Amino acid sequence: MKKTQIYAQEHKQVFLDELFAWLKIPSISADAAYKKDVLHAAEFIKNKLQSVGADKAQVIATAGNPVVYAEKIINPALPTILVYGHYDVQPVVPLELWESPPFEPTIRKTDIHPEGAIFARGATDDKGQTFMHVAAFEAMHQTGELPCNVKFLLEGEEEVGSESLGTFVQNNQDLLKADVVLISDSSMMGKNEPSVCVGLRGILAVEITVKGAKRDLHSGFFGGAVTNPLNALCEMVASLKDENQKITIPGFYDQVHIYSDAERAEINALPFDAEEYKKSIGVNGLRGEKGYSVFEQTATRPTLDLNGIWGGYQGEGSKTIIPSEAHAKITMRLVPGQDPHTIAELFQKHIKQITPLGVSVEVKLGHGGTAYFMDTQSVAYQAASAAVEKTFGMKPYAKRDGGSIPITSLFESVLHCKSVLLGFGLESDALHAPNEHYGLSNFYKGIETIPYFYDFFVKLQK
Amino acid sequence: MKKTQIYAQEHKQVFLDELFAWLKIPSISADAAYKKDVLHAAEFIKNKLQSVGADKAQVIATAGNPVVYAEKIINPALPTILVYGHYDVQPVVPLELWESPPFEPTIRKTDIHPEGAIFARGATDDKGQTFMHVAAFEAMHQTGELPCNVKFLLEGEEEVGSESLGTFVQNNQDLLKADVVLISDSSMMGKNEPSVCVGLRGILAVEITVKGAKRDLHSGFFGGAVTNPLNALCEMVASLKDENQKITIPGFYDQVHIYSDAERAEINALPFDAEEYKKSIGVNGLRGEKGYSVFEQTATRPTLDLNGIWGGYQGEGSKTIIPSEAHAKITMRLVPGQDPHTIAELFQKHIKQITPLGVSVEVKLGHGGTAYFMDTQSVAYQAASAAVEKTFGMKPYAKRDGGSIPITSLFESVLHCKSVLLGFGLESDALHAPNEHYGLSNFYKGIETIPYFYDFFVKLQK
Repeated sequence: MKKTQIYAQEHKQVFLDELFAWLKIPSISADAAYKKDVLHAAEFIKNKLQSVGADKAQVIATAGNPVVYAEKIINPALPTILVYGHYDVQPVVPLELWESPPFEPTIRKTDIHPEGAIFARGATDDKGQTFMHVAAFEAMHQTGELPCNVKFLLEGEEEVGSESLGTFVQNNQDLLKADVVLISDSSMMGKNEPSVCVGLRGILAVEITVKGAKRDLHSGFFGGAVTNPLNALCEMVASLKDENQKITIPGFYDQVHIYSDAERAEINALPFDAEEYKKSIGVNGLRGEKGYSVFEQTATRPTLDLNGIWGGYQGEGSKTIIPSEAHAKITMRLVPGQDPHTIAELFQKHIKQITPLGVSVEVKLGHGGTAYFMDTQSVAYQAASAAVEKTFGMKPYAKRDGGSIPITSLFESVLHCKSVLLGFGLESDALHAPNEHYGLSNFYKGIETIPYFYDFFVKLQK
Repeated sequence: MKKTQIYAQEHKQVFLDELFAWLKIPSISADAAYKKDVLHAAEFIKNKLQSVGADKAQVIATAGNPVVYAEKIINPALPTILVYGHYDVQPVVPLELWESPPFEPTIRKTDIHPEGAIFARGATDDKGQTFMHVAAFEAMHQTGELPCNVKFLLEGEEEVGSESLGTFVQNNQDLLKADVVLISDSSMMGKNEPSVCVGLRGILAVEITVKGAKRDLHSGFFGGAVTNPLNALCEMVASLKDENQKITIPGFYDQVHIYSDAERAEINALPFDAEEYKKSIGVNGLRGEKGYSVFEQTATRPTLDLNGIWGGYQGEGSKTIIPSEAHAKITMRLVPGQDPHTIAELFQKHIKQITPLGVSVEVKLGHGGTAYFMDTQSVAYQAASAAVEKTFGMKPYAKRDGGSIPITSLFESVLHCKSVLLGFGLESDALHAPNEHYGLSNFYKGIETIPYFYDFFVKLQK
C-alpha cells in the first residue's frame, strides 16, 4: 500500500476541495424543500465514483430518495467489501447557533483539533466519513493497489429512518453480495484512543395509550371511585422494573446472551471514571441494573426507558380533572439473543395482564431491530484492528455501544454479512447539532487507514 | 309567610323580566374585554337591592372586580343571614353550539322542564339562583314579613378563583358578621329529589418536577445506567397508593374524620345504581379505596389524582431520549379533619424520602382549602330541611359532594360561620357549557322556599 499512501498524501488538498464541494450541497432529507439538493448530492458522488474508475456507477430511484451504487470487481475469486455510507444530512436549525453557515464549509481550529477541523453540516455525519472511502478507493485503484473487489452503497434517507434501503437491499441481494460491510458512521473513544465498535444494542419502540372514562371527569365528583388513566399508566410503567432495576416482563431475559467472565473482564478493562461520567451529565448518582458495571449496563444489558409521557392538563395553574386518556412512548434496548418480535409479544401480553380494572390499554408497536455483535476473533475484526494499529500505533479498543444502528441487522439478516463499524469521528463532533465538524487529522487518518483494512482483510482470509 | 308567598306569586312575571334584564349583561369575568359589563352587572343588582328597600347598597371596589354589598338590619337582637352569590359568569365559547344567543335569554321547553327553562349564560350559575334571594327578600320586606336581619355579599370573581373575596372578607369581618351564610350555587339530586349539601371535600393542588441530567440524553448511550426522570416520576407516583388504593404518605390519614356506622348508613341510604354509574361515564369497572362504597369513596374519603403529566417527546414516531425533566399536576381531595397545610408538609417530606438517586424533585404547592361539613342536627340544616319539606313535600336528602367550594372554608375560618348550601339547580343545567339553562319551576320553587328558611332559622333558634 506504499503507492496508495503516497497518492493519498499528494492528493490531500484535492480530496478536501472535493469534499467541500459536496458539503456545499444542502442535502437535508427531513425537509421536502431540499429534494433537488438531495438528488444533486447523489449525482455528485456518483459522478465522483465514476470519474475515479468505479463501474456501473448509478443513481437508482427508490420510493424515497435514491441509492447510489458503484462497484469495482477486479476478480470474482477475491473477497468483496461493501462500503455503506449516506449522503443525506440532518436539518440545521437552530441556524443562529452556527458560527459559520452550515453549507459553507470552513476550517477552524479547536482545542481538540489544533490542526483544524472542517465545520459544516455533514462534515462528520456522514459526507466526510463517506468521502474517506471514495478517496481511499481512488488512491488504491489509481495506483493499481486495489487488493479486492469493492461495492459502494450510499443512501439518502439515513437521517429519516432508512425506509427505502430495506426494500432496496431485499430486492438487490445478488448485486450487493459481499463478504463484509464496511461503515464509517460512528465515533472513536478519543482522538488518540482508536476503537472499533463490536457491539450495538437492538431496539423495540412501543407506544401505550391508556383509556378511562369516555370524557374527562370532575376530580371532585368522581375522584376516589374511578381508575385515573394517568395514575394507572404510572402504576403499570413503574411495575415494569423491580427494586434492582430488573425488567419484570415474564420471559424478557430468557434469550439474553450471558457474557463469560473473560468477556466481562474485557468490557470492564476500558477506562472509566464514574465521577467524571456523573459530572458530564450533571447527575448526583447512577442507578442501573444491580450486579453490572456502567459499561455492562449500557452495552450488554437490555433497558426499558420512557422517552415521552403525556395526558391531561399541562397549562398554568390547575384543572381538577381525571383525564380520559394517558400516553407513553417507551423504547427497550435489546441485547444479543433478544428478538424484537418476541419481546413485542411478551410486552403486549404482560401489559394486558397488568391493566387495572376501569381502564383499557392499547399498545402500538414502533420500529424494532436486533442487536449487533462482532466476534473479535473474526477476520473482519482482526483486519480492522491491524489497520488501526498500523496507522495509530496502538491496537484499537473493542468497544460495545449502547445505541442501535438498525442497518447492521438488515445487512446481517438479508445479506448474511457482518458490518465493520470503523468510525473516525469523535463524540465531540457536534453531529446533529449546530457547528458540526470533523477533525482534519481524523479525515486524513481515515483515508490512510481504510486501504490497510482492505489489505489485511484479503491477507487474513488466506 | 303567607303575604310573602302571595307577593311572590303576583310578581312572577316581574321577577322573570328583571332577571332577563340582568342576564342580558355579558359579565364574563375571565375576559378583560367585558370589564365594563362586569361593572354594569354589579351596578344593576346593587340598584335592584336598593330599590326594594335594602340599606347601604353599594358597589365596593377591590383589587379585582367589585363586591356588591347591601343589608337590612331590622333588629340587632335577631339572627342575621348572610346571602352569598356571584354576578359574574363563565365564558361562552364554543358559541356555535348555543341554540340561542347566550346573552339573549329565552324560554324553551326540555324533557326535564316541560314547563320551560330559561336559556342564557348565568341562568343557573349564578345570576338566576342569586336573583331568587333578591326576589325573596323583596317579597318578605315589602310585605313586612322579613323575620330577621339579612346581608348580601355578591362577588364578581367566582368563575376566576374569588381572589379578591378573601381579602375583602378578612378586612370586613364586622360588616359581614352573621349567624349563617346562605348560598344557592349548587344542584339538587333531581328535580323531584331535593337535597341539601352537607359535605364538600377540601383540596390541595401540587405540581411535581423531576429533574435528571442537565440535558436530554441518548437512550442508547446512557440507557441502563442513569435514572430516567419519567420512569422515576411514574415510580414515585405509583408508590403513593397501595394495592387497596390507600394513600401511602405517612400521616396522611391521621386526622381523617371517621364516620360512625349511623352516618355511613345514612350516606349509603341514597339511591345508587353501579351499572348505571359505570355506563354513564363509559368504564368497565370501578376501583376505589377498599372497604368503602362509591358514595363514601367520593365524598368521605381523601383522594390523590393526577390531573396532568408530561415530559419528553410527544410527537409522531419516536425520539430515543432519556428526557431531562418530567412533570405532574396532582390534586388531593381532603376530608373533614385534614388540614391542607399539614398535608402539604407531609407530601413534601414523603416525596423527598422516596426520590431515587440520580434525580431531584421540586414540589410546587398550589391552592388549598379545607373540607366543609355541616351537622344535620344544626339549626341551619334543620331550618333548610324544614323549608324544603314545606315546599317540596318531602325532606331533602343530606348529600355529601366530592367537590370543593373553597369560599365555605373562608367563611368558616374568618367569619366563623357555617354555610347552608341550598342549591336549586340540576346537574343537567349545562352550567359552564353551551345552552346553560335553569328550570322555571326551579327558579320559582327557590323563591318560594327561601323565605321559609328565614322563618325556620329564626324559630328554631329560640
